[in-house]
Amino acid sequence: MTTERTRVDAEKLIIFSTKALQGLGVPEKDAQITARILVASDLRGVDSHGVAHLKMFYAKRIRLGIINLNPKVKIFSRTPAAATMDGDQGLGFVIGHQAMVEAIHRAEKTGAGFIAVRNSTHFGAAANYAMMALEHDMVGVTMTNTVAGVVAPGSTKPAVGTNPLAVAVPADKKPPFVLDMATSVVAAGKLEVARREGTSIPEGWAIDKEGKPITDPAKRVRGEGGLLPLGGIPTLGGYKGFGLGVLVDILCSVLSGSSASILWKSTPKTWGNAGEHFFGALRIDSFLPVENFKKSMDEMIEAFEALPTLPGVKKIYVAGRYEAEIEKDRKANGIPLHSKVIEELQGLAKELDIEYDL
Amino acid sequence: MTTERTRVDAEKLIIFSTKALQGLGVPEKDAQITARILVASDLRGVDSHGVAHLKMFYAKRIRLGIINLNPKVKIFSRTPAAATMDGDQGLGFVIGHQAMVEAIHRAEKTGAGFIAVRNSTHFGAAANYAMMALEHDMVGVTMTNTVAGVVAPGSTKPAVGTNPLAVAVPADKKPPFVLDMATSVVAAGKLEVARREGTSIPEGWAIDKEGKPITDPAKRVRGEGGLLPLGGIPTLGGYKGFGLGVLVDILCSVLSGSSASILWKSTPKTWGNAGEHFFGALRIDSFLPVENFKKSMDEMIEAFEALPTLPGVKKIYVAGRYEAEIEKDRKANGIPLHSKVIEELQGLAKELDIEYDL
Repeated sequence: MTTERTRVDAEKLIIFSTKALQGLGVPEKDAQITARILVASDLRGVDSHGVAHLKMFYAKRIRLGIINLNPKVKIFSRTPAAATMDGDQGLGFVIGHQAMVEAIHRAEKTGAGFIAVRNSTHFGAAANYAMMALEHDMVGVTMTNTVAGVVAPGSTKPAVGTNPLAVAVPADKKPPFVLDMATSVVAAGKLEVARREGTSIPEGWAIDKEGKPITDPAKRVRGEGGLLPLGGIPTLGGYKGFGLGVLVDILCSVLSGSSASILWKSTPKTWGNAGEHFFGALRIDSFLPVENFKKSMDEMIEAFEALPTLPGVKKIYVAGRYEAEIEKDRKANGIPLHSKVIEELQGLAKELDIEYDL
Repeated sequence: MTTERTRVDAEKLIIFSTKALQGLGVPEKDAQITARILVASDLRGVDSHGVAHLKMFYAKRIRLGIINLNPKVKIFSRTPAAATMDGDQGLGFVIGHQAMVEAIHRAEKTGAGFIAVRNSTHFGAAANYAMMALEHDMVGVTMTNTVAGVVAPGSTKPAVGTNPLAVAVPADKKPPFVLDMATSVVAAGKLEVARREGTSIPEGWAIDKEGKPITDPAKRVRGEGGLLPLGGIPTLGGYKGFGLGVLVDILCSVLSGSSASILWKSTPKTWGNAGEHFFGALRIDSFLPVENFKKSMDEMIEAFEALPTLPGVKKIYVAGRYEAEIEKDRKANGIPLHSKVIEELQGLAKELDIEYDL
């Protein structure tokens, strides 16, 4: 297993990804939106949700015709602060972006805006949409369902997705608070990585079909056993993580007029998809002057960062700070792409007959 | 330790608690609201947040003058969907009730309503307010800060409160989804119970000042070490629980114009208090017809309840179902009050010169 990485300029990577997406038939503006969001994940160190998936996940699904490149998006609105959006199986990045713009627009008018989305497709990392609220001095919220892979406490059959939720809150001089978390102990990707690298996983991440802890990730069989909800075993609060997962499913799947992921039939079309989302925006100046809020956020964050630490721990990081530091480095020095990812991007360039110039 | 319990009629308990609160100087209408919310917790089996605290927590604080029985509540509103409320140190139940009514009222008009509250006091169990949204066919949200007792991953000094969040979602024939969870592995009350009863606690609930797991609850010293955030140790997602705790603190403390609980000075006035809250309501018919939504909720809940279970587990319960079953029993057969609680209520009756007729 090689871990060779090459630094690639973020702006160039956006341009390349845009061209690749256009080559796949994505309209220019949509390709730009998608490329920017994909690379934003790479910039923040969320390598699992960036260009590493461009060829094997998104391009594959576009070519299979699972993603509709010219969707007719419909918005159903009955109140000024909220609406449902039907994404017509469009590219998740484009649908997600449009839905968050709509949530922000409604929050501008009424103070709060919420959009439940159905019939979208995988939109990458949730934080990217929640963070769109930051420049508008709003709190941003994004959730998405995913295919069921997490067991309910007391059962061994997958019942909910890893159903991530992301919340972004602006600060003043400090990096924004950005929480982006699967509601399971770990995201599914961590098991995939361990399986690929042949390493064991800690007890407490997943169980087999008899409810016993899995430490060999290769022992996980689809549909039998699964990831544990955040909290893990019941005495340590696993029912809380499960409750959060169900909540995300309700707001994404049920509220958008789709159905809970436990009711999905597994088909090539649904497998790996995460097509129902929930977006929210809350205007901070509905509550207090923005400058007071941001100053107070900084004071809170500084107090956390000044906490005494255990041996070996440098500093207490509030959610979002670690990613902000990575982003600073990667903006200046490039994104360290794994040789395998580079090979894939080169392969994609060849297939699409576009120049690989990274 | 006796565990003798006596069944007490819920309606009578409400009337008694109302009289006791009036005897303490609480105006009649406010006493009724408070008594109903307190007993609602007992009815749902949340004994830790019901009348057991009437004498030793609420009456004590009223008598100390920490709670303002005639508060001048102020609402600052800049947008139709959201507002800040200053509770003027009023009784948390009354302030919380008023704030949730206001959130629902705004959601009726715009689709969504959010109220951040500062200068309130302890309001009991969060679910009671979130559940007020149910009869309006809305999703209800309630959060509150609490005194810092939970450590950040990598530190041993309490940094955030157990900061519970509650969400209530109506279903059709099934009991509503009601999630009410501390964002720590367990609520502080569970350690108190173990300490009183002289039992040990599982590894993973709390750590001492050196970061070592505490299994003897008596070893917990205030201000040193603390409860672990949901997820527990970092490899099992403790930073997620911590992130959720910080999020609740932001929405309650920072957004309401107060300050994060890590910045509070410990005084008799603040100790045990939980005076900043956040309330939200979301109109379901903003998104889809209510009957479709409720039918879809039932289908989801039925699918969870039909999951195969591990040996010893009867059925998978979705959040709120267990409490709904207890409520059904207690409404019919009375609330089983612990002999110690009955003694306290009798003592309170004597002190206030009211009849104890339960």
